[in-house]
Amino acid sequence: MAGQAPGMSAAAGSTDSIHLPRGFSFSAVAAGIKASGRLDLALAEAAPVTTAAALFTTNRVVAAPVEIGRKHLRAMGAHVRCVIVNSGNANCATGNAGIKDCLQVCQKVSGLLGLKTELIFPSSTGIIGVPMPVSKILAALPTLVAAGEASEHAVMQFAHAIMTTDTRPKLASAQFHVGRMNIRILGIAKGSGMIHPQLATMLVYLFTDVAATPAELKRCLRVACDETFNCISVDGDTSTNDTVLLMASGQSEVHLGAVKNKFQAALRQVCGSLAEQIVSDGEGVHHVIRLSVEQARSHDEALRLARSVARSLLVKTAWAGADPNWGRILAAIGASGVRIDPKKVTIFIGSQLVCRGGVACAFDEAEAHRELMRPRCQIRATVGRGRASAMLLTTDLTAEYVRINADYST
Amino acid sequence: MAGQAPGMSAAAGSTDSIHLPRGFSFSAVAAGIKASGRLDLALAEAAPVTTAAALFTTNRVVAAPVEIGRKHLRAMGAHVRCVIVNSGNANCATGNAGIKDCLQVCQKVSGLLGLKTELIFPSSTGIIGVPMPVSKILAALPTLVAAGEASEHAVMQFAHAIMTTDTRPKLASAQFHVGRMNIRILGIAKGSGMIHPQLATMLVYLFTDVAATPAELKRCLRVACDETFNCISVDGDTSTNDTVLLMASGQSEVHLGAVKNKFQAALRQVCGSLAEQIVSDGEGVHHVIRLSVEQARSHDEALRLARSVARSLLVKTAWAGADPNWGRILAAIGASGVRIDPKKVTIFIGSQLVCRGGVACAFDEAEAHRELMRPRCQIRATVGRGRASAMLLTTDLTAEYVRINADYST
Repeated sequence: MAGQAPGMSAAAGSTDSIHLPRGFSFSAVAAGIKASGRLDLALAEAAPVTTAAALFTTNRVVAAPVEIGRKHLRAMGAHVRCVIVNSGNANCATGNAGIKDCLQVCQKVSGLLGLKTELIFPSSTGIIGVPMPVSKILAALPTLVAAGEASEHAVMQFAHAIMTTDTRPKLASAQFHVGRMNIRILGIAKGSGMIHPQLATMLVYLFTDVAATPAELKRCLRVACDETFNCISVDGDTSTNDTVLLMASGQSEVHLGAVKNKFQAALRQVCGSLAEQIVSDGEGVHHVIRLSVEQARSHDEALRLARSVARSLLVKTAWAGADPNWGRILAAIGASGVRIDPKKVTIFIGSQLVCRGGVACAFDEAEAHRELMRPRCQIRATVGRGRASAMLLTTDLTAEYVRINADYST
Repeated sequence: MAGQAPGMSAAAGSTDSIHLPRGFSFSAVAAGIKASGRLDLALAEAAPVTTAAALFTTNRVVAAPVEIGRKHLRAMGAHVRCVIVNSGNANCATGNAGIKDCLQVCQKVSGLLGLKTELIFPSSTGIIGVPMPVSKILAALPTLVAAGEASEHAVMQFAHAIMTTDTRPKLASAQFHVGRMNIRILGIAKGSGMIHPQLATMLVYLFTDVAATPAELKRCLRVACDETFNCISVDGDTSTNDTVLLMASGQSEVHLGAVKNKFQAALRQVCGSLAEQIVSDGEGVHHVIRLSVEQARSHDEALRLARSVARSLLVKTAWAGADPNWGRILAAIGASGVRIDPKKVTIFIGSQLVCRGGVACAFDEAEAHRELMRPRCQIRATVGRGRASAMLLTTDLTAEYVRINADYST
């Protein structure tokens, strides 16, 4: 997913400087939703005529803000003027009260900004099934709205305010030039657990100053997501609040149609970087695994095989121990439901062939162990059925993951 | 799965006395396959004309003994005279050498017993992808064959010798009377990790002295497995060596046709007890969860929903913390692929309703926490789609599971 397109400058993580697209301002406050007192309410305001495209979770259980966000986009022909996000509460499985709470927040924001309510796009992330602390949010909104600014500092505050179990903020940006004009893309994401997206994933906000119709944006977003967020898995759990939102202010005065390939490449780069950051910051993760499955009949089949491996607890725990136990990988491939022939399977750990024709090869076990000790490892399997392949970015499963998620503190 | 049929006496676990079917003898030795020096080679000899039925793993990757066992059963019209099992090595992903090793063991046993090679049924369990220490096994066979006896002690030795990460042997037996005759069933199983059977599961040997044709046995076995071994999950990993073998010596002189219902009930009881023992002894397990899904359109759909919950790491880690976080259960139901309507979902923890219409109920959280602290807990979900239901016996996921499986000691 990494690798930089030519003629493009990129910035990832929190240390590099950010390519800030024109037409957006950011702010964040601590509204008291998180018991820790940390930032938990974030706002991004967009210039007039900003177009948008969004992808949402495929979980049948969806949070109130996902329902409202989808409805608002539809009502306004995919125009968005403001994103309001809270962390610490998912506003999911909260019924009609949750819908009412979400709408109340949107109405208050729209009143403060003098905009139609349907131009507000809401998001929430945190615990499921607990009523929203809506009065805390309403009380904090005037300060939040007043604080908006188009600065690197404000972007960082926004990125911090949407975190839950994340240990670090996740940002990526890119810019490219067309004649004397330049186009910028900025992405901000959160996500650490419940990461096994099927269509969209986690909370991801993408800001650009290209000019584009919603349909153009949607096409670009779908392609970029399929190659990035849809190819990661931390724990096999698909969230109820996953949202990826792309907004285009048009303030670069360059139309997307004129720079389609460059824009798609830059968008892919930003999404790829954010996807990598999410997996690297996965709950309790010690090793990130770049898992390739090749020679499948279709991309879907390759992905299904890769997901079967990436969901196997025995495989993930072996990775935690840097154990080159390729037999567990082979068993997970065999249990995927794809009618593979074990005799055609080969498995590589790093650049070393460890299994050929479904059988052990003589290999340097110490070297394979060393490869798996690295924070980033490569595993590759070929299944001899066709020409399609897929790459999944996934993680080991450590005792720390269990501790993080078994820690009952309600 | 528990509960005893009327007029039937049952014995489960290692402390009760065993109902030993006539026509079988048992033995075990330490052949040196396990580095620990523990028992690792077991043999059960059956009387002439013993019929059999077997179910095997649905994993596309299957071990050599599964291939040979299947072939031998077919060659002899489902008659079996001897079962030879080693632990410490799965003889899986070992290619032609593995097949040759397995056959060599069968040939040696058949030579020692004066039987056709095809009457020997082999099994292996342990690490995948490592060549069989076949000379150690061959050297130990004369002692093993000579030691066979029809005693409780020998049965216990057999049960110990097939263990891998199991912390205790798994046995269950039952008998019932027909006039002055009695019919006995004895089951011996191993299994602790890689437990997520799709058709058959783990290693399970069932011995009975009823008289039956292979076809009759197969029908009974399939019904019993569907209701027991196919309804358990420890870690979502389907093994490459799963085998359930039922053997009938006929020495009770009662034909199965005459006692079909009683036999089926007794077989189910034995299988149900073994399935419970396997789950309770799951790697690192602290809590066993009896998970029911009701009001599905079909049994398969109910099972799919239950499996989605039982495979969710977030649900399993919440159970480890006795956390009544029903939102994670709802999210796992929503991610199952079944087109459920969240508004029709209710969830119970123990006897307490915690979620109705996909939304939180007022419930006693301390009580729900206490329920989940018990070694055996009940979770029930209804999905309002139909009348079918399924029950899955599953487990929490603890840091101990990760430690057991991440411990790289190759």
